[in-house]
This record gives sequence, structure tokens and C-alpha cells, in this order.
Amino acid sequence: MNAARLPRIGLLPTGPRNAISDVAGVTVGHCTLAEGPLQTGVTVLRPHTGDPFLDRVPAAAVVLNGFGKSIGLVQVEELGLLETPIALTNTFSVATVAQAQIRQCMVANPETGRGLPTVNPLVFECNDGFLNDIQRMAITEQHYLQAWATAQADIAQGSVGAGRGMSSFGLKGGIGTASRCGAGHTVGTLVLSNFGKLPQLIMAGEALGPLLAQRLAQADAPEKGSIILLIATDAPLDARQLRRLALRAGAGLARTGSVFGHGSGDIALAFSTAYTVPQDPRRPMPAVAMLHDAQLDELFQAVADSTEQAILNALWNASTVTGRDGNRRYALADLLPERAPHA
Amino acid sequence: MNAARLPRIGLLPTGPRNAISDVAGVTVGHCTLAEGPLQTGVTVLRPHTGDPFLDRVPAAAVVLNGFGKSIGLVQVEELGLLETPIALTNTFSVATVAQAQIRQCMVANPETGRGLPTVNPLVFECNDGFLNDIQRMAITEQHYLQAWATAQADIAQGSVGAGRGMSSFGLKGGIGTASRCGAGHTVGTLVLSNFGKLPQLIMAGEALGPLLAQRLAQADAPEKGSIILLIATDAPLDARQLRRLALRAGAGLARTGSVFGHGSGDIALAFSTAYTVPQDPRRPMPAVAMLHDAQLDELFQAVADSTEQAILNALWNASTVTGRDGNRRYALADLLPERAPHA
Amino acid sequence: MNAARLPRIGLLPTGPRNAISDVAGVTVGHCTLAEGPLQTGVTVLRPHTGDPFLDRVPAAAVVLNGFGKSIGLVQVEELGLLETPIALTNTFSVATVAQAQIRQCMVANPETGRGLPTVNPLVFECNDGFLNDIQRMAITEQHYLQAWATAQADIAQGSVGAGRGMSSFGLKGGIGTASRCGAGHTVGTLVLSNFGKLPQLIMAGEALGPLLAQRLAQADAPEKGSIILLIATDAPLDARQLRRLALRAGAGLARTGSVFGHGSGDIALAFSTAYTVPQDPRRPMPAVAMLHDAQLDELFQAVADSTEQAILNALWNASTVTGRDGNRRYALADLLPERAPHA
Amino acid sequence: MNAARLPRIGLLPTGPRNAISDVAGVTVGHCTLAEGPLQTGVTVLRPHTGDPFLDRVPAAAVVLNGFGKSIGLVQVEELGLLETPIALTNTFSVATVAQAQIRQCMVANPETGRGLPTVNPLVFECNDGFLNDIQRMAITEQHYLQAWATAQADIAQGSVGAGRGMSSFGLKGGIGTASRCGAGHTVGTLVLSNFGKLPQLIMAGEALGPLLAQRLAQADAPEKGSIILLIATDAPLDARQLRRLALRAGAGLARTGSVFGHGSGDIALAFSTAYTVPQDPRRPMPAVAMLHDAQLDELFQAVADSTEQAILNALWNASTVTGRDGNRRYALADLLPERAPHA
Repeated sequence: MNAARLPRIGLLPTGPRNAISDVAGVTVGHCTLAEGPLQTGVTVLRPHTGDPFLDRVPAAAVVLNGFGKSIGLVQVEELGLLETPIALTNTFSVATVAQAQIRQCMVANPETGRGLPTVNPLVFECNDGFLNDIQRMAITEQHYLQAWATAQADIAQGSVGAGRGMSSFGLKGGIGTASRCGAGHTVGTLVLSNFGKLPQLIMAGEALGPLLAQRLAQADAPEKGSIILLIATDAPLDARQLRRLALRAGAGLARTGSVFGHGSGDIALAFSTAYTVPQDPRRPMPAVAMLHDAQLDELFQAVADSTEQAILNALWNASTVTGRDGNRRYALADLLPERAPHA
Repeated sequence: MNAARLPRIGLLPTGPRNAISDVAGVTVGHCTLAEGPLQTGVTVLRPHTGDPFLDRVPAAAVVLNGFGKSIGLVQVEELGLLETPIALTNTFSVATVAQAQIRQCMVANPETGRGLPTVNPLVFECNDGFLNDIQRMAITEQHYLQAWATAQADIAQGSVGAGRGMSSFGLKGGIGTASRCGAGHTVGTLVLSNFGKLPQLIMAGEALGPLLAQRLAQADAPEKGSIILLIATDAPLDARQLRRLALRAGAGLARTGSVFGHGSGDIALAFSTAYTVPQDPRRPMPAVAMLHDAQLDELFQAVADSTEQAILNALWNASTVTGRDGNRRYALADLLPERAPHA
Repeated sequence: MNAARLPRIGLLPTGPRNAISDVAGVTVGHCTLAEGPLQTGVTVLRPHTGDPFLDRVPAAAVVLNGFGKSIGLVQVEELGLLETPIALTNTFSVATVAQAQIRQCMVANPETGRGLPTVNPLVFECNDGFLNDIQRMAITEQHYLQAWATAQADIAQGSVGAGRGMSSFGLKGGIGTASRCGAGHTVGTLVLSNFGKLPQLIMAGEALGPLLAQRLAQADAPEKGSIILLIATDAPLDARQLRRLALRAGAGLARTGSVFGHGSGDIALAFSTAYTVPQDPRRPMPAVAMLHDAQLDELFQAVADSTEQAILNALWNASTVTGRDGNRRYALADLLPERAPHA
Repeated sequence: MNAARLPRIGLLPTGPRNAISDVAGVTVGHCTLAEGPLQTGVTVLRPHTGDPFLDRVPAAAVVLNGFGKSIGLVQVEELGLLETPIALTNTFSVATVAQAQIRQCMVANPETGRGLPTVNPLVFECNDGFLNDIQRMAITEQHYLQAWATAQADIAQGSVGAGRGMSSFGLKGGIGTASRCGAGHTVGTLVLSNFGKLPQLIMAGEALGPLLAQRLAQADAPEKGSIILLIATDAPLDARQLRRLALRAGAGLARTGSVFGHGSGDIALAFSTAYTVPQDPRRPMPAVAMLHDAQLDELFQAVADSTEQAILNALWNASTVTGRDGNRRYALADLLPERAPHA
């Protein structure tokens, strides 16, 4: 599907891929499980091609709603750095993926937790239990490594990787990505979209929820979903500024109809690729002139717009999936063919 | 102007007044200065008809963007209570109004700061310096008392009170209010709206900004505005839950086109009227069953919808104002007469 | 060892056990691995004898220093509740123990993550890598279950459970507990103590660090340790108030010489046993009169004093341990026999 | 009084003045009112000799206990900068001093709030109402300007400036300062000390409270005081790191016996003089290599030690004061002459 033909959000130009990989060096890989009641996976985002444990990336997170089971945010908050790839998976597989990250770091850096500090795994999750038999805990450490090994700039969207079993607005959700350019820099967003009640859905300003709810004859169930919002930028920003960016993902999320539901783990994390911070304190620290805060407005807009776009891209790129107990989520493109980008 | 005829946001029913005063006991008063270069004022919200220093109100705030000069939030955060009326005014008059609140409390409670604790003034602000000669610091303590004395359930909107000199989306902003009912309770919102760049304006999902920008021939100036978002509810909630509500004002704000601009002081405060907490520790504490968090979703929706509505109400109820140095802000109703509620 | 004979901190009376189990219903169990290079374990605190997933416990945490890899704090912060036992282990076993908690919850509540929400595991850690071969990841889910099954009011201290491999002030650290009574209620503290540089050690006000450093001939190594501080009370408090209590554990910690070192994960969590909050929103919510905040001062003192006491108890109750690569940590009682409680 | 002869805290060396002005460029001035029932004042700290509105200083604050009425922290938190001198005064004079700061900025920068942003006043307070007739609101804008004009590196301590009417541990409190050197940099602390109950007092590890309480025959009154803790350093640190430093002031505070009492406004703010950030976004941003976080431990120790020292210095440098209604606070030197530095 051609993301470029999807409804276009905002006035800022997109990057060449309209994807988070428009921020140079960022790559994403998926490992997808799609066998009967197992509809789940792992998605891995690598912030750069090196070892992030040695060359750490400035980062900050905002918890819009904390009904979530992620691991790693305490240290990100304290140090303003991430030091592993970012992993996405289902709620009950966080532990396995965290374990995989620790082992991967120990292999690369045998002194991890001895001469070197312990490593801080960073794993986010949504609950795909409607389509996926989440209680089977089917994800293995190997799946993480596969997703990691296939990371590339060309990013598959929709019902792939961690997005395989996710639902959004009562429809098929999953992975979406987009980018925007502003203030001389690029902002890219990648979402794991698993939130929203159908009557709330707003598409590019249009309240499509009621129409779709009619077609689906769907009851108004309480929201139990979540969304993870990852924002990359090549602008030189410190952790305090990145927190400001991360919060603006909430603005884009709200414009799709979300009110950050009670049962939702809505977490945004922003990182910059403009510089790295060495793990080894004997190596020199970067001497970087950050952007002046008065120049952040266009980046804020870029975050909000690319977030809204990425959520819609997840919906439009999804395919209908049937999983556990015959549970089914329809793709938006199947339900609204007259609006589908290819139609 | 008849608020009931304005564009209607969301699916939840409004209260009888579609105003924050639909939460029983809440009243609002204005004192307006409108003489040449002085276009400013004070707005006071009383959470109940008693003395809030003796019977304190559970409350919590969220700072969406902290480019602001409010006073009082440190103690609200620690104790989860407000103990004065809530005052709104211009940026350089916060101190005077805080002083007025302290003096008002000392008059009512002569032991304030001696046998009784000191009182925590609570004053929010936006910068009305485009229309108002803010450097004149024209607001006096008497203006606060006048606004307080006229507090009532029938709330004037638009270019009144603290809203007199405010701008929003390059148009005339000011005071707006709305309410929604959900989960068996009422949520009311009152905004002091002074934020937004015209090209960003979204009205009930429609991106009207570009059209209006054309009519106004307005350049794309950096946002220096702010918005204060006050949320009242009669639902029994504690401070932690009220913070969750306050954050959802950000969702409504985002749907009007805001990305919480860098130069903006965007602060939301939510309070409950369901119970009070005595200043005097010898008096009995309330034994209240709070709402279960799983029942908050409809209140979250009510906060977002009433916030979006209140912002639009501020725009539609505003009148064109000319102030300092002949600076002028046009009312939306004058600029878009074909859409005005009365048209 | 008789904890009652250890140096006594502060003026408040202790509970009968001088342990966190003086808060009625609280029990603690250990599973200890002590074989050559494996010197580690799991400690489990059960807040009450029922299923905390069904009857959740009000709780709040404070991160004094966030160089830590705990799991579960995001949801505790949002909902103000814990819904599993609290588990302590080594840094690289957090994932395994979290997995065990999820599985334990699914066994007890087969609809977990389907009809019921997902469960939020709550696991804290310190790095015992000096004595323990942490890279072996020797902890299994079974170890968690064993610790859980043996939880009781009579709590072993020192080099047991998660405390087996921990170091504190360059000496043998581990598990310590204490309690204090105040304001008509009981406060109990349990620590997993793994922090501190020897020259910093202050014992009941006395700067013993230099003397001990001389006896140990220990170099001044950078602190890489951590401390987890768990506070229980039977006082009726909400999450906001419990956060205030949790912070006061930092005051007790500071009085032992800590400055919350950079490489330390210093996290305090406080919970109340005075009431529970049902998972099922159809069950009635508790109608509890909380303590007035003006009555918290004695509880703050109780938290600080029992924390300081618990840290010293961990040191005095520890036994000398030799582990990985022949690394050894001496017990304080061996190094300072003239002060040992039994001497 | 010779601060160098007071009890010495910790192992790190002091700066030449053992004062916050050991951080080059930092100066402090006082304006003291001492006439009968008026025992109060203003203290002003200038972070550098220029205009901080044009050349802003990186800063961050930590609220240890938020029973306080300071103004300015919202924007410091958002932008990580201070842009005025730091002012200290009594609780009911915050507004007047804030007004003075705004006016001072407008005089120096006539476009403040117009072409330039509004200015963020930064005023901290404690309640001196025992000795001072706080309800008289005797502080004027002129007093702020006097304190500002007399700022110098030679800093008077004790019952001066904002410290004139303050009480600490039931004794005479006030202004104290100290410094420590570590990690190749200097850390200085200045406190406005108005907290503590006498039985809690710990002096350099010795629990002197009970002895002093006997001499004073003082009842155990609830704490209503506060402490403001200002930390300066010449180490290059960003706002996130400065927040880490500010928290460690709490460790020093705890070692004097504080448990951060309920009625106390205990706020720490740290700033760096290593670089400034221009108000004007067209000016170049500083390209500074920050300290690696792994090098912060000695600075943490320096903050804790200089804080403990500054609090003791405030006590030892105070003189006995009689104020409102004949209320009197004794100087520690008068009560404990056998320990006084000059004895």
C-alpha cells in the first residue's frame, strides 16, 4: 500500500519515506507470529547502527496514561538516555524480550554488570489478547533477535511484528509510521496502535466513528487498549527538550479521537540521533549546541502531525486478521473501501 | 449569544447551562477594565459558597506547557487541595491578585499565618499584552474583590474579566465555558483562552485556519499565548484521579489545533465538589467512596469534549476589541458571519 | 541475632517484632541460593493474605535515584495501587520473577488479560554481581514461588533471599527490617540494602566509616549499589499521602551516610493495609476517612527512623559471604566485634 | 563569627570563603527590617553580574515538601532556566517581591512582555510569623532593590535579610552558607533555615535535641517551618543533572534531623554558572560538554555536606531576636555557649 496516497495531515512536508527511518540511521525490524491462535510478534527499533550500550542516545518519555507494563522507563527518566534498541511486543512477553536484550548486551559486552554497569532493557507493550492467545506467552528470545537482525529503513506497516494482534478503534490496528520536516530537521514517528473505541474515531478531522460503528454493528466496549508512540529526530536536543517533544505526540493522538482511556497504556518516548553519550566516562563528552527552545514550535507541530498520520497509516495498512477463538478484526480498508487509498 | 446554538462537540449531553456552573455550587464573577490601552481584568471562580480556606476542595493540576507564571501549584500538588477561590488575570497582575487573596483570607480568618497555617493563593494568568498595556499593571486588589463579589451561576463569556484582552488563533479570545454529563455526574470546564496560531485552528474537526488566515491576511507569528483550563466535577474523586481528569483537557485542547506551543502556559486544574477537607485537623475527615477508576472513561470524554467546546465558545462569544497602540483583534463572529451561531 | 539489642534509632516505640510484619497481615518469605558462585535469591512481601489482584492495596513510590531496572512502577503511579506481591531479586532476574508473577496470577484468575485486565508485576532489584555470578541468571520462576509460599511474620534478616549476594558500604548487606509506632498507627520498613561506600557509613550518628575503612584497607570505589525501601502502614492513607511517606525513607537513608549515589537505584514504595480497592468495578468501593495530613508528622518520623534502623539491622544481621571468583564481603559483626549486639 | 571554626561536616575541602560565593560570580545581598514587631527582610542571590533575563542560567528545582508559596517554579521546570535573581522573603511578601522583579526587568528591558517574552519572577519564602508581624506585609519593592544593590561575595549569615525573623529547631534560624570542592569543581549552598523541632536536632551526628530541649523547656510543637536550599556550582551541568544535585540537598537536610515535616515548604534549587542560555534565539547557543553523570558522585557529596554545614552555620551565626508580642528565639550560641565556635 502506498502510504503517500493516504489522507495527509497538516501542512509540513514529509520526509522521502514518510517513515521514522527518514531520521538517518534509524531502522526497524519485525518478527511476526501468525498461526491460528498465536497472532503476535516483536518489533525492534535501532536508533543507530552501532551498539547503543556503548554510545547511548538522549531520550525522554511521557506517560499519558500509565495502565501499562513497560520496563526501562525509570532509568531513562534519571539519565535521559536509552542504551538498548527499543522493543515492542505483547503485554505478557515484556519479560522475555527484556531478558533477550540483557543477553544480547552481555554477548557484545562481556563485562556487563561487572566491570561495566548493568544494562537497562527498554521494552514497551500493548495487550493483543483479543486476537492473540496472550496466555501462551509464545514470544521467545529468538524472536527478538530475529526482529533485531532484520531492522532496515524500509518499514512494513499494519498487521506485522508487535502489531500483528493489535486492535484499534475496534478495527485492526498495528504498526504505523510517518515523518515530517520542520525547523531544518526531521521528525519521525512509529506507533504500536492498539487503542480506541470505534465511536471516537476521527480521521483527518472527520468523525467517521458513527458511520463505521453502524457498518460493524459494534457495541460500545470499554477501552482496554494502549498505544506506544516512538519519536525520532535528528535535531540536537537534550532530555528536557525531548520530553517536551514526547508530550506533543499526545496532541496528535487526541486528534484521532483518543481521550487517553483509563485502561490504556499510552506512552510516548522521543530520542535524538544528533549526538551520543559514551557509556565509558573516560571518553570525551559531546559538546553540542542544542536548539534554542524558541525554535521548537515547528518540531512540536511535526510530532503531532506525524503521530496523527502514523496512527491513520496503521489503520489503512492493516489487513483483516482472525485469531484466538475465531475472534476477528476487520481492516479499515475492507470496511471503508470507498476511502481506501488505492480505491 | 446563545451558546446552545454553537457547533456541538461530541456525543455526551450537556448540562442545563452548558457551563461550569452546571456543577452545583460553582460560581464565576468578572471584573473588566476596558478603557483605551487598558483592556484586561480579573475572573474569579468560587468552588463553593463557603470559605474554601476552612473547607478545602480536592484538586490537582497538570502543566501541559510551563511557560507560565501562575502561583499556588506547589502546594496544590503536595496536598491535593485548593483553599482559595481560583483567580485568573494577566501575567503581570498575578502578584496583586495573590496579595488580595491573602488579605481576603486574613479578614475572614484573623489567625491566618499565626494560629492557622498561611494561606496558599491560587492565581493563573495569560499574557494579554497585545491588546492591553500590561506594563501599566492596572489591576488592583479591589478588582479581585469585585470579581469575587459578583460570582454567579450565570457566566458571561468572551471579552470579559480576565478574558478582556486575550487573543486566540490571532482572533479575539477570552472566557469560554461548557459542560457535559457522563457516568452519572457532571463535568464543567471554563477556559481563559489566549493561545493558538490562526493556520492551526480546527473547528469541530474542520481545518478553518487557512480560510480565516486568508481573510485576515495574517502572518504566521510565533505563538506566545497560553490557556488556563479549569475543570469542575461533582464526581467523588481524589487528587490522583483529578490529575487524570486534568490531563484530558489537553485532548480537547489538541482537537482545536493546539500543539501546546513553546511560549504557552497551558495549565489544567481539576477539582471535585463532592466533598471537602477541613483545614482544622480536629474536625472529622470525610469518609467518601471514590469512583472506581474503571468508571472514569466517560468523565475523561466529558473533560475533552467540554474543553473543546469551551474554547470554541470563547471564540464565538468574543467581540472585536481595539486596545493598546490601536492593536485590534477581530471576533470570529465578525470574520466568519456565515457560520456565526445567530446567523 | 536479637534485633532488639541493636543500636536504637529515634524516640518512637517499636512494634512487638520490630519488623514490617508488625503491620498486621504483612508477611515476607525468602528463597536463598548459596552455592559457590551463585549467591543470590528472591524475597517476596505479601501485603495481605488474600489475592492482591482481586483486592488491591493503595501504594505509591518515590524514585530517589533511578539507576535501576525495576518493573511495575508506571502503573503504580497511575492507579495508586499494587496488585501483586512485591518481589525483590537481582538485576538480571527481574524478568523471570515478573513472568512468575504473571503466571501465578493467571493460575489464580484464568481470565487475566482476557475478561479481566492484564496484571501488573512489581519486581525490584539490586545488583549483587560482586558476590553472585549475575550473568548466570540462576533465578527461576520456581524460586519466586518458593519464597512466596514461605512468607510469614517472622522475618529472617541479613544474607538471605534477595539479600544473599548484596553488599552495603563495602560490607555484607542484605535484608533488614524494623518498625515504629506513631499517631496511633504502625509503620514497618523492609530494605534490600546494597548501597554505600565505606567512608560514608554513619551508624546512629557516629561516622564509623573511616575506622572501618582502616580495618578493611578498602579503596574508595565508586558506588554501584542500590537500595529498595518498602514501607507498610496500617494508617488509612491514599496514594498521594503514601508518596509523602515513601519520600521520608530517603531521610532515614541519608542519615546512614547515603547521598543517593549516581549508580544507585534507590526506590521507596509505601503501601497501606487499612483498606483495599476491588479489581472488579461492580464491587463497592471503600468509604474510608483518610488521616488528616496534619497528623502525618509522626508517621514521617516513623518512616525515617525505621528505615535507618532497618539498614543498620541488615548490616548487623549479615554473615560474611564468599562468592564468585572468591570475592568476599565481611559482616559488620565480624569486623566490629566490640560493637556487635551480642558482644 | 568565624565560620571556619564551626563543626566541620564531611571530608571534602571547602572553598576559600566556605560560602556560596566560592562559585565565581555569585553574590548575595540582604535588606533587614528589625523594628519591634517587624523582624523580616529580603535576601537576593545574583547568579552572575549581568542581566539574567538576557543571559539565562541553567537551573532545576526539587520540592521535598510542598507546603510552600513560592513563585516561578513552573517555568523553571519547563525551560530548565532561571532568568531573574533569586529572591528570598517571608510568606506574605512573595507577591511584592515578584512585582519588584518584574518592574526591575521592565526597566532594564523595556520590551519585556511585548517584543520580548514576559519575565518569570523567582521568589521563595518561609513563614517568619512567630517573630515577625507577617500580616503587616511590611516588605516593599524598595527593600528588594536594596538587597539586590548590596549583593557581594562576602555574605552575612544568621539573623539577616530574609533570615531576620526565621526560627529553626525552636531556636533562632536564618541565613547560612557553605561550600565544598569536588570533581574539580566548586559547590556552594545558601539556606534560608526556618524548619525543625528541637528534639530532632542532630549536630554533626550528635543528637543534641534532647539536651537543648531541656535547657529551653520547650514543648513539642508541630513543625510549621520551611527551608529553602539554593545550590550553585561551576560544573557544566544541564537541567536534568542539576535536578539530581538539588535532590541531594535533602540528604544534608535529613542529617540535621529533618524528616521534611508536613507543614514545611522544603524546596531545593540548583543552578550552574558554567554557561548561559541567551533569551534572544538569534544569538548562538552554547556548545558545552556536560560532565559525565558517572562523575557526579563527588558533587552529590558536596551538595549534601555543604547543605548540612550551611544549616548549622545558620544556627551558630544567629543572634537572639525578640519580635512580635514579645516572642523570642534564642541563638544557639547563647544556649550552648560551651560549644560555640568562639568559646
